[in-house]
Amino acid sequence: MKSYRKELWFEIPARRGFVNITRTVQECVSDSGVQEGLVLCNAMHITASVFINDDESGLHHDYEVWLEKLAPHAPVEQYRHNVGEDNADAHMKRQIMGREVVVAITDGLLDLGTWEQIFYGEFDGRRRKRVLVKIIGE
Amino acid sequence: MKSYRKELWFEIPARRGFVNITRTVQECVSDSGVQEGLVLCNAMHITASVFINDDESGLHHDYEVWLEKLAPHAPVEQYRHNVGEDNADAHMKRQIMGREVVVAITDGLLDLGTWEQIFYGEFDGRRRKRVLVKIIGE
Amino acid sequence: MKSYRKELWFEIPARRGFVNITRTVQECVSDSGVQEGLVLCNAMHITASVFINDDESGLHHDYEVWLEKLAPHAPVEQYRHNVGEDNADAHMKRQIMGREVVVAITDGLLDLGTWEQIFYGEFDGRRRKRVLVKIIGE
Repeated sequence: MKSYRKELWFEIPARRGFVNITRTVQECVSDSGVQEGLVLCNAMHITASVFINDDESGLHHDYEVWLEKLAPHAPVEQYRHNVGEDNADAHMKRQIMGREVVVAITDGLLDLGTWEQIFYGEFDGRRRKRVLVKIIGE
Repeated sequence: MKSYRKELWFEIPARRGFVNITRTVQECVSDSGVQEGLVLCNAMHITASVFINDDESGLHHDYEVWLEKLAPHAPVEQYRHNVGEDNADAHMKRQIMGREVVVAITDGLLDLGTWEQIFYGEFDGRRRKRVLVKIIGE
Repeated sequence: MKSYRKELWFEIPARRGFVNITRTVQECVSDSGVQEGLVLCNAMHITASVFINDDESGLHHDYEVWLEKLAPHAPVEQYRHNVGEDNADAHMKRQIMGREVVVAITDGLLDLGTWEQIFYGEFDGRRRKRVLVKIIGE
């Protein structure tokens, strides 16, 4: 069994944003030499997400509006977590979008459906944060 | 290490629906010959879900009502994604229910709790769509 | 390839509660002897969750309030599932928080970010319930 580990670093200039990391994760898979296996890709921070969905700017706008409706940022005083912090909503948004994805590797490639793209989802940005890519297989 | 891959195809006649795929996934596990390992089971489409919960029709009705409240289908114009499409809500419903499950394989069987059942969750049906089953182990 | 399986048992005295299980999962990893691999940690019940977030009591209070807003317990008659039961909301809360986490194992340790902690999330407690820890790797 082979294993592989890499950290990907991000610094999103705004509080929130989505970054397509599919190509970078595929590069990790290629570097690993794994032909058949699984790749785990997870946020290492608890106010960020790794998720799979469409690379379509209208949808990303819709997600932003929708997540803000389900877990509003303001007023920040509505959350007990926000003592010296203002990111409680980010901890909630990330639970809806998820911490991680597990993707199959087949013939050395990410085994994704036609429109599946892997995203880093940031909900409390403006600082350096990281994603873990861990691969096991043969 | 053994690996196994299979696509399961679905065509749900309505926009939304849930299909219990536990038995089919167990057949994949049996076919794979894996005794100890992990099975990844994921929607290959971004408006569908694979999730684990109860096989109880009242609950499925409750999920339908609840998801419609959290991410309403209509009016379709509320979503920027809906330009020539009407499925933005399906992209949201699927984030709540999740893209994938990872299930343990022990002694050649899906290692599930008493009431755990694996479902395909469709949120934009009436066309052929697929689920990936990927197994690794020994 | 090595594999390892353990059930963790819980009996939360209230309907809802969060328990930090990070140390226990690390003990499983150490027992397994796996240096490089993946650990799957999932609720074996469909009204409970395993998730990763912050070990901060203010945030846990915020989650409680937020989940109750998104999927209210009462009135119990609003859910068709609640025929002889009153836990339909728990099936929903668990979908938002998720069934499982998959965590990388690197050098024999859980490969977690600085603030990542693994929690058992109970939404229908006052009875014995269990979590599965399954490890594969080398």
